[in-house]
Amino acid sequence: MVSKNQIKTITGLQQKKFRKQDKLFFAEGIKVVQELLNSNFELHHLYTTDAFFKGIAADKVTLITPDELKKISALTTPQACLALFTIPDEKPVPDTGLIVALDDVRDPGNLGTIIRLCDWFGISHLVCSLQCVDSYNPKVVQATMGSLARVNVIYTDLQEYLAKTKLPVYGTFMDGTNIYKEAMPQNGIIIMGNEANGISAEAEALATHRIAIPRFGNLQQTESLNVATAAAIILSEFRRNV
Amino acid sequence: MVSKNQIKTITGLQQKKFRKQDKLFFAEGIKVVQELLNSNFELHHLYTTDAFFKGIAADKVTLITPDELKKISALTTPQACLALFTIPDEKPVPDTGLIVALDDVRDPGNLGTIIRLCDWFGISHLVCSLQCVDSYNPKVVQATMGSLARVNVIYTDLQEYLAKTKLPVYGTFMDGTNIYKEAMPQNGIIIMGNEANGISAEAEALATHRIAIPRFGNLQQTESLNVATAAAIILSEFRRNV
Repeated sequence: MVSKNQIKTITGLQQKKFRKQDKLFFAEGIKVVQELLNSNFELHHLYTTDAFFKGIAADKVTLITPDELKKISALTTPQACLALFTIPDEKPVPDTGLIVALDDVRDPGNLGTIIRLCDWFGISHLVCSLQCVDSYNPKVVQATMGSLARVNVIYTDLQEYLAKTKLPVYGTFMDGTNIYKEAMPQNGIIIMGNEANGISAEAEALATHRIAIPRFGNLQQTESLNVATAAAIILSEFRRNV
Repeated sequence: MVSKNQIKTITGLQQKKFRKQDKLFFAEGIKVVQELLNSNFELHHLYTTDAFFKGIAADKVTLITPDELKKISALTTPQACLALFTIPDEKPVPDTGLIVALDDVRDPGNLGTIIRLCDWFGISHLVCSLQCVDSYNPKVVQATMGSLARVNVIYTDLQEYLAKTKLPVYGTFMDGTNIYKEAMPQNGIIIMGNEANGISAEAEALATHRIAIPRFGNLQQTESLNVATAAAIILSEFRRNV
């Protein structure tokens, strides 16, 4: 059984305001929930249509019907279970290693894909400007496929962060140096920009290295890459010589 | 004015069946429509809420109201104009150069992103298995941001195509050779697999080279990359030494 109050609380968590207030977020589907159960995230409560998971304390599980799941799910096609987890405190970002910084990335799918990429390339810290989409947004959580558990995402004033760091700061610009022609270091901050406007003038002014992904197609065209595919290419270049 | 019949024809084009029958597809929004107008695609008819485009024959334009646009649009938020274009005949794929082949890629966003990547990396031909999502699907057209005009997408029996080619065939597999350790050729077919199942056993049997993108994160995890981000990394590797 899910009470009316529980439905209200859970659907409320689709909004950032209530996630901040309750310090809770949710994930759906056996694969994503299993990945988060295996991680350091603390389970708050699991709503499930069947006994898919072993070893969970009885007071943290509620068996529900598919109809009840529909009432709490954020998915068009609900997927067997929904779990609430506690939002942990952000960890401090060290001033060493490779760090990705996002300047107003607004699309949940893009943020989710970038979190997966960080996980793949062994990048433990992702710094987001305050205007980025929230990493605990249900669409981001689903897109990360569990990688959210392995990447520390922190939200901060990006300009202040970039002004203070001692690390080199890399930004991608049309007039930057060809990423294929120089060996990339294993210490640095890589800024990726907003979907429509790219990197802001404020962040651009704080970039110490301007890089570019060469284009091989028709050079008359001004078309750009999507921010997540650009991040894939750049992270691959930074890691390929390790 | 848009007649009831026109509304029926245009909304019908959201279905592959009617696109095949009428040999028409549509695109929306000033940016995408402008890119397609600048290309080799033949305009069939333009429905627009304002005179955004110059030099179009008067009998090919209908000025409509935002309310009328809503009735023909496939977007949640209609974007000022909608244009119908003729679907051209598929061009033959040469047995030379770099070619991308998709094995049952089903998600319109992924296909659109891969078409954009082909355009960026100067890959003119994209071979799709018959189970791939249709490249003239409205969601694909919007995701390509105009790149559809510059990449020849052909649908064919992939197994037959791979069996006949004289080009080397590259497939990405966990046990493949590290893409960062060998120089990639400028002739070959790169197969990318289905979102859930990867490359099919039939296509795998026809791959002449097994490659892999090394993972740098926690190696206990079995997580994979999204097919579009994997394509970005692989295409970048094939082009980086040109």
